[in-house]
Amino acid sequence: MQLILLSGGSGKRLWPLSNDARSKQFLPLLKSPAGGMESMIQRVVRQIRDSSLDVELTFATNAVQRDSIINQLGDGLGIVTEPQRRDTFPAIALACSYLSMEKHCSDDEVVVVMPCDVFTEDGYFSTIGRMAQAVSEDLADIVLMGISPDCPSEKFGYIVPECEGEVMRVLRFTEKPSLDKATMLIGQGALWNGGVFSFRLGYLRKLVDRYVQAESFSELRGRYGEFPKISFDYEVVEKAESVAVVRYEGVWKDLGTWNALCEELPGTHIGNVLMGDHNEGTSAINELGMPLFCEGLKDIVVAASPDGIMVCSKERSEYIKDYVGSMQHRPMYEERRWGSYRVLDSTDYDDGSMMLTKSLKIRDGKCISYQLHRHRNEVWTVVDGKGEFVLDGERRSVSRGDVLNIPAGHLHAVRAYGADLSIIEVQVGCPLVEEDIERFEWEW
Amino acid sequence: MQLILLSGGSGKRLWPLSNDARSKQFLPLLKSPAGGMESMIQRVVRQIRDSSLDVELTFATNAVQRDSIINQLGDGLGIVTEPQRRDTFPAIALACSYLSMEKHCSDDEVVVVMPCDVFTEDGYFSTIGRMAQAVSEDLADIVLMGISPDCPSEKFGYIVPECEGEVMRVLRFTEKPSLDKATMLIGQGALWNGGVFSFRLGYLRKLVDRYVQAESFSELRGRYGEFPKISFDYEVVEKAESVAVVRYEGVWKDLGTWNALCEELPGTHIGNVLMGDHNEGTSAINELGMPLFCEGLKDIVVAASPDGIMVCSKERSEYIKDYVGSMQHRPMYEERRWGSYRVLDSTDYDDGSMMLTKSLKIRDGKCISYQLHRHRNEVWTVVDGKGEFVLDGERRSVSRGDVLNIPAGHLHAVRAYGADLSIIEVQVGCPLVEEDIERFEWEW
Repeated sequence: MQLILLSGGSGKRLWPLSNDARSKQFLPLLKSPAGGMESMIQRVVRQIRDSSLDVELTFATNAVQRDSIINQLGDGLGIVTEPQRRDTFPAIALACSYLSMEKHCSDDEVVVVMPCDVFTEDGYFSTIGRMAQAVSEDLADIVLMGISPDCPSEKFGYIVPECEGEVMRVLRFTEKPSLDKATMLIGQGALWNGGVFSFRLGYLRKLVDRYVQAESFSELRGRYGEFPKISFDYEVVEKAESVAVVRYEGVWKDLGTWNALCEELPGTHIGNVLMGDHNEGTSAINELGMPLFCEGLKDIVVAASPDGIMVCSKERSEYIKDYVGSMQHRPMYEERRWGSYRVLDSTDYDDGSMMLTKSLKIRDGKCISYQLHRHRNEVWTVVDGKGEFVLDGERRSVSRGDVLNIPAGHLHAVRAYGADLSIIEVQVGCPLVEEDIERFEWEW
Repeated sequence: MQLILLSGGSGKRLWPLSNDARSKQFLPLLKSPAGGMESMIQRVVRQIRDSSLDVELTFATNAVQRDSIINQLGDGLGIVTEPQRRDTFPAIALACSYLSMEKHCSDDEVVVVMPCDVFTEDGYFSTIGRMAQAVSEDLADIVLMGISPDCPSEKFGYIVPECEGEVMRVLRFTEKPSLDKATMLIGQGALWNGGVFSFRLGYLRKLVDRYVQAESFSELRGRYGEFPKISFDYEVVEKAESVAVVRYEGVWKDLGTWNALCEELPGTHIGNVLMGDHNEGTSAINELGMPLFCEGLKDIVVAASPDGIMVCSKERSEYIKDYVGSMQHRPMYEERRWGSYRVLDSTDYDDGSMMLTKSLKIRDGKCISYQLHRHRNEVWTVVDGKGEFVLDGERRSVSRGDVLNIPAGHLHAVRAYGADLSIIEVQVGCPLVEEDIERFEWEW
């Protein structure tokens, strides 16, 4: 059985902790059973591995999230990145084509597609097992997960089943109904659409062939733009002749707003926070080095990261995405496959040039690719760790205190070796533009 | 007439904007009549200059505040710095000795001593004029300012005058009475002690002579430790035979708590702040580069600086000094006579060494003294401006993009020349200890 985890999202609703480079599923804010902290994506993968499901995992994601997935979950997972943002049908079509053309899975194999950012309990994964079982017994072409509704809500899609049972045929769908209609639907036994889909690989392959017939996966990926921008629900589920649904009744939460997330935090605060003696219902998360002090607050959430600081009543925290657009600039913190960086300071000068100071952490054994910048000089001061540095083909060892001058136009690479490497980088030159960089190969 | 402004204070109650290096009187948070912002000390000096007082100003302060006074008020003011922190009697004794021995003021000259951190209106300065007039008419040895009380308060000292009049003889003093006693005192016509003192220079000189008889001001300053640690009120005012008081009835506020300060801020926020549409009675000040977003808040004050972030109900903001001690570390921002610096990043390593990254701004024409560090290397990257750099006696011009390696033990200095100079400094080595630095002279 193949499990495709959809990992996307723009990261506006959990600003300033999430940003375009770090969606909510990567925030390490949940308590792990091992005692430390884990992100939503780490939690869901742990839950899958702890379940009785015998599955192979593939992530359907975008290029920006690829490095975060590897950093948080290690190498060796299947990761399919969409070349451009389209919608869920193209993303799932691409991942299924990867299973078929790259992993050579058979058309009979059962595929389950699920989101990676819902907070659930173990029963969720046994429900997935029953869904896959239903597909393998040919009870329907598509089997969905239906969530038992807590309350009438205008936010979800509703699935109306024909009659009660473990695997129920679906009569019809209703997208985001009015509150009155939702109440009526729930009275008729309708379930929320959980966004989990199960089908045989061959079933989807035929739908893919309608849009793109390719000889290889790389050809298909190159022609990704030929897929229509449409959701999997509209393109596949609503057009299918035989759709069934399996009910899930346990915890099912979208931790996509501060209000919802705060309920699952392991305590009142995370990071360098001092809570005074007169706070109530207040949560604080501080990813900055400087201290955060909270006192006399009631039902407030405070979050601070290199991207910004948010102080918001829990009640209003659902609406912050309306404001975030006017504050977002370049991400000030990013995880990369080689480690992470943080912007310490930046200035744009009147004459069009700029200064950018970063702190880089390169993980032991990892390297930054061999590259040159045409329009900026860089000065690297090694402040901790050990590694190897290459400038125009000349290799040298580096350690704490070494200063590396990298003038514009010169090829350079660095590798941490024997310890994590910490570097303070000062860039002076023209603003960062995509064409400023050229990448080459270097054999370590 | 000589006016001595007392500038001290530890800066705990307005954390994180104030710190040991930046007391509340230097925070540029008040609206100036010219349209910009001004600090309390800039406000009080502007008020003095706009008043009809014909005075010469001298600041009695400590070494840490000296550079801030010059930066905010320019050169050319008298500044007397106490060699160590003692109390108000020694500080005023030192400043008076400076007037006598360095400025050669006569014993007949009238001196007024006042705090620099009260928020008042113009009538305050005409009251000072009347106090000085009373001294010059020999109505008393010491003339005080009495503030008309708003309400009974346990926080102040009370002055009980003999009878009503413009210049009233003082019957007795009561320090911080109970609320009941305060009510009774006010019923008897008592006034709050405003901490403004007026006397002839010769009167104080005699008191100084009791403790230290010196030939020169520098000798006296060197023997500062021989003065007792005692307040001016206890040592001078309460022992004086003839004390009078002049009443001031206008605005008189200590903007020493966030609650009080917020009332005088020019709007709801200062700095890079986005206020949402549902805040009430809330103030936000952000000195960081990153954005601060506030929404759904009621009667809250938010303040962010390189030293930390505070989110506090206005009601509880009086008590933050009880918590600040556990958060304070080295100041992350400081004004110096040559400009200012901000700490961008710092790490202490397990082996006892450290890394510190700073952004320096050196003002045009100013220089950092010729010095060496025994135990740390520094790398300076010039990111903006122009200047001259000296390393072991070798002088060179520097401008944007230049990298200056300063190994431990090497003498260096820099001067901004033709423009303000911005430098990113990375220190690697042993922790900053006072003995690590040696300063020398360099003739530019």
